[in-house]
Amino acid sequence: MLSSPTPAKAAPHQELLYRQLAGHYGSAIEQGALPPGSRMPSVRELMLRHQVSLSTGLQALRWMEEQGQLEARPRVGYFVRQPALARLPAAREPSLEMESPTDIDASPFSGINPRISLFLEKARQADVKIDLGTAMPAPELFDAASLNRLATALLREQPNILLRGATIRGTHPEFQAAMARHALDCGVRIAPEEVMATLGNSEAVNLALAAVTQPGDIVAVESPTFFGLLQGIETQGLRTLEIPSSPHTGISLEALELAVRSQPRIKAVIVVPHLQMPTGCVMPDSHKQRLLAFCTEHDLALIEDDIYRDLVESTHPARPIKAWDTEGQVIYCASFNKTFAPGLRQGWMNAGRWHTRVQMLKYARTRNMQSWSQLLAARGVSAPSFDRRLRKLRSELRTQREASAQAIASHFPPGVHLSLPPGGLSLWLELPDGASSTLLHEQALARGIRIAPGPMFSNSGRYERFIRLSCGMPFSPAVEQAYVELGQLIRAML
Amino acid sequence: MLSSPTPAKAAPHQELLYRQLAGHYGSAIEQGALPPGSRMPSVRELMLRHQVSLSTGLQALRWMEEQGQLEARPRVGYFVRQPALARLPAAREPSLEMESPTDIDASPFSGINPRISLFLEKARQADVKIDLGTAMPAPELFDAASLNRLATALLREQPNILLRGATIRGTHPEFQAAMARHALDCGVRIAPEEVMATLGNSEAVNLALAAVTQPGDIVAVESPTFFGLLQGIETQGLRTLEIPSSPHTGISLEALELAVRSQPRIKAVIVVPHLQMPTGCVMPDSHKQRLLAFCTEHDLALIEDDIYRDLVESTHPARPIKAWDTEGQVIYCASFNKTFAPGLRQGWMNAGRWHTRVQMLKYARTRNMQSWSQLLAARGVSAPSFDRRLRKLRSELRTQREASAQAIASHFPPGVHLSLPPGGLSLWLELPDGASSTLLHEQALARGIRIAPGPMFSNSGRYERFIRLSCGMPFSPAVEQAYVELGQLIRAML
Repeated sequence: MLSSPTPAKAAPHQELLYRQLAGHYGSAIEQGALPPGSRMPSVRELMLRHQVSLSTGLQALRWMEEQGQLEARPRVGYFVRQPALARLPAAREPSLEMESPTDIDASPFSGINPRISLFLEKARQADVKIDLGTAMPAPELFDAASLNRLATALLREQPNILLRGATIRGTHPEFQAAMARHALDCGVRIAPEEVMATLGNSEAVNLALAAVTQPGDIVAVESPTFFGLLQGIETQGLRTLEIPSSPHTGISLEALELAVRSQPRIKAVIVVPHLQMPTGCVMPDSHKQRLLAFCTEHDLALIEDDIYRDLVESTHPARPIKAWDTEGQVIYCASFNKTFAPGLRQGWMNAGRWHTRVQMLKYARTRNMQSWSQLLAARGVSAPSFDRRLRKLRSELRTQREASAQAIASHFPPGVHLSLPPGGLSLWLELPDGASSTLLHEQALARGIRIAPGPMFSNSGRYERFIRLSCGMPFSPAVEQAYVELGQLIRAML
Repeated sequence: MLSSPTPAKAAPHQELLYRQLAGHYGSAIEQGALPPGSRMPSVRELMLRHQVSLSTGLQALRWMEEQGQLEARPRVGYFVRQPALARLPAAREPSLEMESPTDIDASPFSGINPRISLFLEKARQADVKIDLGTAMPAPELFDAASLNRLATALLREQPNILLRGATIRGTHPEFQAAMARHALDCGVRIAPEEVMATLGNSEAVNLALAAVTQPGDIVAVESPTFFGLLQGIETQGLRTLEIPSSPHTGISLEALELAVRSQPRIKAVIVVPHLQMPTGCVMPDSHKQRLLAFCTEHDLALIEDDIYRDLVESTHPARPIKAWDTEGQVIYCASFNKTFAPGLRQGWMNAGRWHTRVQMLKYARTRNMQSWSQLLAARGVSAPSFDRRLRKLRSELRTQREASAQAIASHFPPGVHLSLPPGGLSLWLELPDGASSTLLHEQALARGIRIAPGPMFSNSGRYERFIRLSCGMPFSPAVEQAYVELGQLIRAML
C-alpha cells in the first residue's frame, strides 16, 4: 500500500518512492482492478494523484514496463499487458473446486438461512450454462424494440429525469395513478397516493414484514413456499411457521386456525394466491375471502405477494385478495419483473392501514426508486398494447411449459409426479423414490445445469424428492439436452 | 366492493348488478383511482372483466353518465368528468392543517425514530416551494444532454438490457471493473468481484449495519450526524451511541476509546470522513489512519460512508480510510447520487471481510440493482469527461455556497455562527440565543420553505439552535427571498 503522499525531492527517497508507486499499481493489476488492456494513468495524473515528481512517475512507469507489466504505445501512453496465456486457465480452478459442498463455509450466512444460502452460493460459484433454476422470463419473450422506444421517448420528453434525486415524497405521482388504474382492472381500489414504488417485489415484501412485526414474531407461510420469503423472514429476526397448503386451494385455513390459537406471536400471513411458488396453485375466490375474513378477525397482517397474477391463463383477470379488503388488512405487493421489463426491477406495493409506516421505513432503508423506471413502467402498463402483449407472453410460456413437460415425460425415468399449472414460469415435480434433489442439484451444477431443489422451498426437510424447473427460456435443443442429462442423473440414483 | 363475478341473466338481479358495477367505478372516481379525463372501460371490457351481460355494462355506463360522473364522447367512449371547480381547493385543506405538530400521529413511526420521522412527515405533507432542506444537487448542475446520449447509446448497444432480470450473480462485471478502477484513483484497491451495486448509498450503509450487528448491539456515530443514519440504525433494532466530533478532525478517538471500554456491545462505527454531514468536516489522513488502527485493534467494523468525497475541493483526490485498510475491516459505501446522476439512485459498496455475507443479505432483501443503471454509471464515471465535469460541479457548488453564506450575512440577525466547508452541498449554522430551529422549521414550512433543523441530526436534544441549509440549487432571487423570510422569522424569535 502506498504510504500517505509526501512531496519527494532527495534522490534516495525518490528511488524508494517510484518502487512504491510501481508496487501500488502492480498489485492493482494482480487483483484485476486494472485489467489487461486498460490504460495506466499518465505521468501528469500520477504526479497529481500521488504528489510525486515527474521523474518519479516516469521511473515507475518505465520500471513496470521492464517488469513486463506494462507496454508503452508511442504518443498514447502505457497499457496493462495481457497476462501470459498459461495463466488464464488457472482463473477458473476455484469455481470448479467450489462445487463440492464441503468447500463452502456456511458461517457468513448465519441469520440468512444458511441452508438455502448454501444452495444459492453453490449456484453462484458454478459455471451455469443452462439455468432451469431461475423463474425468470427470457428477454426474447418481450418486445425490446418498443420498450426501448418508450425509454428514449421518455428521455427526450423529460431530459432531467435521470438527474432528479431522492425526495421525501418518494413515489412519482404518474406511477401512482397508473398503478391505481391497473389495480382497478382486477377489482382492486387503491388511493393513488398510497401506491409505493419499490426495488422489485422482494423489497416490497420485506418492507411489509418489517412494518407489522417485532423481532421474534412468527410469520405464517404456505408450505412449500418461495425460498426468498424464508430468507427474508429470517434476516429480519423473525420465525417462520409453515402451514400445510393444498395444490388446489392453497393454505389450509384449518391448520392456520390451529396455529393461531397456540401461537400468539403469529403477526402476519404471507400468501402467493396466484401461481403459488413453487406449486403453481391458484387460490379460489371463495378461499381468498375466507382467508381475508380470518386474518381480519384475528388482526393478522395479510401480505399478498401477487407477482405472478398477470401470468394466470383465464378468460377474465384473476382478482387479488386485496379486491375484498375493506379494512386495509392486506398489504399488496406486486412487480413488473415477470410481465413487462425484468431488467427494470420495478415493483410496487400498497400497505393498507400500514401505509404511513411503510412509507417511512422505505425512506429510511433505500430512499426512492428511480423516477425514470417508475414512469417507464407506468407508460408501458397503461399502453393499449400491454394486454395484447400479456396474452402473447402467456401463450408462449404455455408452449414452453408444455415442451418442458414433454421432455420430462420422454427423458425422465417413470414415477415422476407433475401437474401442469394454469400459467407461470415453472414446473414443480416429484421425483421417483430413491432420488435426491440435493444430490441432483450438485451433479447438475457440475455439468453447467442449474435446477432449484425441493429443500430450498421449506425449512421442514420435506420435498427432498421435489425439484422446481423453470420454463422461462424458449425451449431449444440445448434445453432439451439439459433435460436428457437430468434424466440420466436421476436414473443413476434409482 | 363489487361481489365476486357471476353471470347475470334475470332482470331483477341485473338491475342490482348494474348499480353495483356503477358503484364500483363511482368510488374509484371518488378515490382518484380514475382521475378526471381518464377513459372508462368499454362495454366489452366491462363484460369481460366483471362477467356481466352487455346490457348490464351499458346500463352502468349510462347511469353513471346521468349521475354526472361520466361524459360520453360519440364513437370514442365514456370519460370521467372534471369535478366541479368548487371541489378542487378542498383537496389542499388537509396538507395545510397538517402543518401544526399536534395533527400528526407519531405512532406509525415507532422503531423508525418517531422524532426524526415527524420532522420528515411534516415536510412531506407541506407544500414546499423552496427546498433548503434536501442536500441534493440541482439537475442544472449536470450535463443532461450527454448523459441522455450515453443512455440511448447503451439501449442501442444492448437492446435487451431492460429485459434481463435479477440473477444470483447480482452486480454487473462491467460496473465492478469500473468501480475498482475508480477507487484506484484515490488509492483504494478493491477486487472487482467484491464490488456490489446498491440502491443508493442508503441501502449500502443499511446492509453494512445488518451484516455486522445483532439486534440490541450498539453503533457508534459522529455527533451531530446524518438523520438517515439514526433512522437506519433504529429500524434494524440497534442502538445509537453519539461520539463527540470536532468540526476540524471528526470523531473523537479519546471519546470512542472510553465508550468501547464501557460498552462491549459496540460492534460498528460509522463515519463520513469527507464533508461530514452536517458539519462539513474533512478528516485529516493521520486521523483516518488512527481511527482505522483503533477499529482493527478492537475488531469494530468501520463503516465508511463516502458519498461526498468527490465534492471536496482539493488539488489531489482525498483518500478514503479504505485506502489504508489491509484487513478488510472497512466497509466502504459510496454512490453517484451527488456527483453523476442523482436520478439513477446508483450506489455501490465493498464490504471488506464481510463481502460474502453482505452479498447474500442484499440478495435476500432486494435482489439486484438494474444492469442498465450500473452500466450507465460505469461508463459515465470511466469517461475522460468525468473529472472535468466534477471540477465544474465543485466550482458551481462553491459559488452557491458562497452566495448562500452572503445571504445569511445580509439577511439573518447578528450572532449567527457559520464556517464555510471545503466543498459540498450544505451549510451548518448556529443561530443566536433564543432562536429555535424546531419552531423555525414549522414556520418556514407554512411559508413553503423547507430547512433541516438541528435536532434532526442527533438523538441527544443538542443542536436546537442549529440548522442545515442546502446549497444544491442555483442561487436565484426566489432563493434569496427565502433567506430574507428565514431571517425575519429568526429575528421574530429573539
